[in-house]
Amino acid sequence: MNKVALISIDYQKGFDHPVWGQRNNLDAENKMALLLAHWRKNKWPVIHVQHCSVEPNSPLRTGFAGNEFKQETKPITGEAVFKKSVNSAFIGTNLKSYLEDNAIQSLVIAGLTTDHCVSTTTRMAGNYGFEVTLVSDATATFDRKGEDGIHYTADQIHNIHLASLNGEFCTVKSTDEVLNNFM
Amino acid sequence: MNKVALISIDYQKGFDHPVWGQRNNLDAENKMALLLAHWRKNKWPVIHVQHCSVEPNSPLRTGFAGNEFKQETKPITGEAVFKKSVNSAFIGTNLKSYLEDNAIQSLVIAGLTTDHCVSTTTRMAGNYGFEVTLVSDATATFDRKGEDGIHYTADQIHNIHLASLNGEFCTVKSTDEVLNNFM
Repeated sequence: MNKVALISIDYQKGFDHPVWGQRNNLDAENKMALLLAHWRKNKWPVIHVQHCSVEPNSPLRTGFAGNEFKQETKPITGEAVFKKSVNSAFIGTNLKSYLEDNAIQSLVIAGLTTDHCVSTTTRMAGNYGFEVTLVSDATATFDRKGEDGIHYTADQIHNIHLASLNGEFCTVKSTDEVLNNFM
Repeated sequence: MNKVALISIDYQKGFDHPVWGQRNNLDAENKMALLLAHWRKNKWPVIHVQHCSVEPNSPLRTGFAGNEFKQETKPITGEAVFKKSVNSAFIGTNLKSYLEDNAIQSLVIAGLTTDHCVSTTTRMAGNYGFEVTLVSDATATFDRKGEDGIHYTADQIHNIHLASLNGEFCTVKSTDEVLNNFM
C-alpha cells in the first residue's frame, strides 16, 4: 500500500470559544481520536496542522490558551506539526515538500472548519495531485450569515461543501469507511 | 488608487454542454461583459483564465470547441490569458509572479464555477495576501449531488459558498457595487 498520511487540521482549544457561534457535529473530535489511534497503531504518518492566527483578538492566536491542541487529538512525540497563519496548510509552510520528501502521495484529511481551512487545504492538495480522502464525520463547521443577510446552519454549510469537494478534489468518506478501507 | 485587476475565470463555450446539469444565474456572462467594458474603458488590467482540461471527455479539453472563450467575454488584444488544468488559477501557472511583477495587489474575481474554480482561486488569492472582491452576480455554478445522495440546487450551492468566502477570503459584491466602487 502507498504511504497514507492522516492530516488533522486545527483541532485547537480556541474553537470552543463562543465567538464562532453554533457548531455542527460535536462528535468530530472523538472520530479524529479513532483515526489517530488507528494511524498510530499502524505506525503510519500523522500530521497535525495548527492555526497560529495573527489577528489580535482571535482565540487561536499564538500565546493564547486557545492556540493549544485539544486534549483528545493532540500530537504525540514524533508526529509532524505544521503551523500556519492562513487557511491553507500549504501556504507559508513546507508541507508540500515534506510530503514529497517522504514519498507520501495519499492523504486522509479532517478537522476544523469544513468550509474554511479544511476545504482550502483539501482543494490545494487535490490540485497538487495528491490522492485525498476527506472524512465527513471527523470534520465540522459553524453557522454563518451570508452577505445577503441569510443565516445558514453549520449542517447546511457542511453538507454543501462536502458535495462540492467530493469527486472534484477528494473522495468523501466516513470514519468507519476509512477505518475499514485503510487496514 | 491601487492597480486592480479583473480576473475572468473559465468563461468558455464548453460550460454550455448539458453534461454539467442545471445552472443558476444565466445572466452572469452579461454581468462579466459589463465589468470587462468598464475595465477596458479605464485601461485597467484584465486577466482571463482558461481551463484546459486533461480529462479525455471534458467539453473544456484543449482542441475541443468548448475550450474556446465565449463570444461576449472573450479576450481582446493585450489582455493576459492564463491556461490552467486544475481548479486554481495559481497552480501550474505563473499568475502569482505576474501579479507581483505588475504590482497588482487588488483583484476583482468572477466566473465559472462558484464552488470549484472561482472558490479555489479566490481562496488562494486571499491566502496569498491579495485584496479580493468576488462578484456574486457575475459568477454561477451547477446543481450537484452529495455523497449523501442529496440533490443541491445551483442557487443553494452558490449562496452558501459566497457566505463561506465573504469576510474570510474576499468581500462579496454585486456588479453594480463594483462598477460604482471602482471608478
